[in-house]
Amino acid sequence: MNNQQLFENIQKKGSFLCVGLDTDIRKIPSFLLEHADPIFEFNKAIIEATAKYTVAYKPNLAFYESEGLDGWISLEKTVNYLRENYPDIFLSTMYARAFFEKMNFDAVTVAPYMGEDSVKPFLVYKDKFVILLALTSNMGAYDFQFGVDNQTFEKLFEKVLRISQTWGDENSLMYVIGATKAEELAGIRKIIPNHFLLVPGVGAQGGSLQEVAKYGLNKQCGLLVNSSRAIIYASNEEDFALKAEESAKETRDEMQLLLKSAGLI
Amino acid sequence: MNNQQLFENIQKKGSFLCVGLDTDIRKIPSFLLEHADPIFEFNKAIIEATAKYTVAYKPNLAFYESEGLDGWISLEKTVNYLRENYPDIFLSTMYARAFFEKMNFDAVTVAPYMGEDSVKPFLVYKDKFVILLALTSNMGAYDFQFGVDNQTFEKLFEKVLRISQTWGDENSLMYVIGATKAEELAGIRKIIPNHFLLVPGVGAQGGSLQEVAKYGLNKQCGLLVNSSRAIIYASNEEDFALKAEESAKETRDEMQLLLKSAGLI
Repeated sequence: MNNQQLFENIQKKGSFLCVGLDTDIRKIPSFLLEHADPIFEFNKAIIEATAKYTVAYKPNLAFYESEGLDGWISLEKTVNYLRENYPDIFLSTMYARAFFEKMNFDAVTVAPYMGEDSVKPFLVYKDKFVILLALTSNMGAYDFQFGVDNQTFEKLFEKVLRISQTWGDENSLMYVIGATKAEELAGIRKIIPNHFLLVPGVGAQGGSLQEVAKYGLNKQCGLLVNSSRAIIYASNEEDFALKAEESAKETRDEMQLLLKSAGLI
Repeated sequence: MNNQQLFENIQKKGSFLCVGLDTDIRKIPSFLLEHADPIFEFNKAIIEATAKYTVAYKPNLAFYESEGLDGWISLEKTVNYLRENYPDIFLSTMYARAFFEKMNFDAVTVAPYMGEDSVKPFLVYKDKFVILLALTSNMGAYDFQFGVDNQTFEKLFEKVLRISQTWGDENSLMYVIGATKAEELAGIRKIIPNHFLLVPGVGAQGGSLQEVAKYGLNKQCGLLVNSSRAIIYASNEEDFALKAEESAKETRDEMQLLLKSAGLI
């Protein structure tokens, strides 16, 4: 998938929602535990309920790995299910180069700390993306990402944005920019006007979708807003899929208005 | 395993060698492909051949993940084999918190970019270590790790060393310091005199064991020198295990002399 196809899906659905499949077997409705593969059953139901409001899914590997082999199998089934039933949905994950090749993800998220030659191996795949951590939504972001360089007077995340642009362009690189740092978005858009941003931290962590859209939207939308808990754990009962659907629809409705206001749909 | 136990093993074996099990099915001797699980067979033979010269093994997850489920199984068998047959050997890996819990590794390597709260979840396990990327041995290290902070005048890797010391002590944290940056080791030892360092880049990447030892040894040795290709791919023929053993022994002999010179054994 490339930027243009992603943008067309955003336009079609009026949504730039990415649902984080942070599926924790201890958190899913207990009645699902009767199934042979409760994690896959949960994901399948969540996907069916939310796919029409969603342009991307992002399974968080840590949750699957913590179940060992079983988790790996659940993930593989989830990916295959998505590819078979929703081939136009953008699928992203973290850390595992292998998944690019074996499991047909569209993107992986990687840390920039080790520099160009640690990221380049991920950049050789056509129509796939590296999503580089730039400005994250957690508290720890303040430990290093805001450090100012004494030669260029850039903050570290700005330096990451600038330097990494020589590694690939907006057709191969995206960036993680936390919604909790929306005040930085205007400046960030000056450095990378055309790239897509994957934005965690809306909702649960206090980030505002309005603010993110105000400073982050570009002419191809350029935003994927990740939401996990607020959608997948909207209910812990038998109605979990229905509640997930409602929560996704609500977010889509808000995004649709924002896209209309910006003249993008 | 804790620092003291690790040091005792180093003293006993006269070696601070960590063998990187970067096992690539395309690189192992072809006659092994007849086995049902060639990767495990290879690892088992390498471990049997090198264990007496080695205090640590570090399977690189990327290589196992690239084989999908089969790779995962090979890794699980390798870990179990090591735990059953060499219970005093330090076992480390990358990225996967799950492995701490499920697969009984002693350490995981993580990037510091996202700061304290991204690392802390790994620090709650007693007698296990987080190995934080600080100064890596690759070319990309120069992209960000040497950036000087305009307030503290520290290089980024020095800031990582200093700040991360508030996250845990030398019983829970180690650092990756590339052998190719040995000239920085004296300064690094001023910041973290007591921590163990995991040192890649000796040999193939041009780092010198002598230099690393000269500036890096502390009163508990404080060094794990990682070697992968030079040992596990010492030969591509039927004698691969024998050649791996010879290469490990050679490294051990050199380390033994260095430990003696330093009065540590």
